[in-house]
Amino acid sequence: MPGLSRFAINQITTRSWTLPEAVDGYARRGVGGIGAWVDYVDAIGVREAARLIRDAGLFVPCLCTGAWVNVTDDAGLKAALDENRRRIDMAAEIGAGCLVMVPGSLAPGEKDLRVARARAEDALAALLPHARASGVALGLEPLHPMYAGDRSCLNTFAQCLSLSDRLGEGSGIVADLYHCWWDPDFAAGLRKAGPERILTFHLCDWLVPTRDVYQDRGMVGDGVIDIAYYRGILDEIGYEGPFELELFSRLDWWLRDGDETVQVAVDRCAPFVARRSRAGATEANRSRSRRAR
Amino acid sequence: MPGLSRFAINQITTRSWTLPEAVDGYARRGVGGIGAWVDYVDAIGVREAARLIRDAGLFVPCLCTGAWVNVTDDAGLKAALDENRRRIDMAAEIGAGCLVMVPGSLAPGEKDLRVARARAEDALAALLPHARASGVALGLEPLHPMYAGDRSCLNTFAQCLSLSDRLGEGSGIVADLYHCWWDPDFAAGLRKAGPERILTFHLCDWLVPTRDVYQDRGMVGDGVIDIAYYRGILDEIGYEGPFELELFSRLDWWLRDGDETVQVAVDRCAPFVARRSRAGATEANRSRSRRAR
Repeated sequence: MPGLSRFAINQITTRSWTLPEAVDGYARRGVGGIGAWVDYVDAIGVREAARLIRDAGLFVPCLCTGAWVNVTDDAGLKAALDENRRRIDMAAEIGAGCLVMVPGSLAPGEKDLRVARARAEDALAALLPHARASGVALGLEPLHPMYAGDRSCLNTFAQCLSLSDRLGEGSGIVADLYHCWWDPDFAAGLRKAGPERILTFHLCDWLVPTRDVYQDRGMVGDGVIDIAYYRGILDEIGYEGPFELELFSRLDWWLRDGDETVQVAVDRCAPFVARRSRAGATEANRSRSRRAR
Repeated sequence: MPGLSRFAINQITTRSWTLPEAVDGYARRGVGGIGAWVDYVDAIGVREAARLIRDAGLFVPCLCTGAWVNVTDDAGLKAALDENRRRIDMAAEIGAGCLVMVPGSLAPGEKDLRVARARAEDALAALLPHARASGVALGLEPLHPMYAGDRSCLNTFAQCLSLSDRLGEGSGIVADLYHCWWDPDFAAGLRKAGPERILTFHLCDWLVPTRDVYQDRGMVGDGVIDIAYYRGILDEIGYEGPFELELFSRLDWWLRDGDETVQVAVDRCAPFVARRSRAGATEANRSRSRRAR
């Protein structure tokens, strides 16, 4: 479906599906891509995963996620970095444009976010040579401030853009409406980043009320995020990359059949993901989604 | 208790207590002040509330909160502004240093946060003359981004400081660790604000995990916030104002006896609220807490 060529569904959205089921279920509805997760890939092996995705003709905007690095001992840190290198290799093999880096935050007993942030930066810098050599970008994803205590110490778009400036080539930003929609500086951040720094753009909605801190994201259209406004900014800056629906929804969508979720996702997202300019579009997607080996 | 002279407890912390019970319960433990709430004051009448607080010798760092202004019709907006003026008068009468402004966010059906933020600013500007005339500062409180959809469209310290710059005299900032601790720019914001712009400083802790989006704040010491670090910054900039414990805790502290909560609060907060410099201290508290009429 041409209108869905930039559109991917992140596999966590249909949580009960295996990777083969998700690949089939998305491709059958004309969805262009799949956002992959390490555990689903591991469940069938990376070679089989790469083959399935390639055969279905899906692009892979990202692999979720890097391993947390919130450890203070040398052995633990080395193990976390090695695991991240393994995931970079996995991303390369399935043709993912980036590995989404969610570095964790405070180590057990720790209270100083500056320490956690410095440690995350050091870890990212340590991983960068391997990422560059593999052709997999490190995707810095600002996570909502309500995850600053545990899931990630990277919490604003501006913070991640500044970090990416320091890391340089081989890093970029994974922008997610759920995490950034509230930020008075988000629109300015997108403009400052420009189209090439934004590796993939995650869609979902913010429910009022939100019933669960972690797993109550809303389907596009069910919440209060002004998605059309942000799509307009992305068009304005010339963004030609992927749009990717990602729902954590234990109270709603994870309870439904995957087919229903995909059908509703396509209906709801179509107005926001259609290609509006042809120039460079196919190339942009290709450069983000490496050809699976 | 001299070590508690800058320390107030916000009445929502002991939710089941009436205002007379809270005034008595706090004063009995040597707590210096009480953060007041409109509904508790209304329950006994503002004159009686003012008398009780004055007789107990408590200072009042703030009155919580202003009324939401997330309405789009003229009559609704006028009613909201009138209610806010009534609350400004109430703050003046009980000797509160400021009225904490929580303006709500999106109106029903609305999606554009820029509209909500402009409306909140207009409302605050409209209230400013009355606030100035009453000697009650409008306390702009950045609320955690997870409340951007409903409770408040003011979500970062920098945003509130910039708004206060535009509003000018009669406005200031209510800083709350719960709302701001994650912000990479919070410390810089405190330094930029300087001591006079910070009307009161709310203490509490961030629990990992946080089990409820709205009412699961942690007692000081039970979470991951580096409270000593922020106290250090406040000392460094010469802040001499109140420290105020504010807990929303339906899963824990609201289930306990108020006396227990106050005792634990005093024990936990004492190290963070003690006066470290004498210069100007009493004057600072006095200028923030007007004498009850």
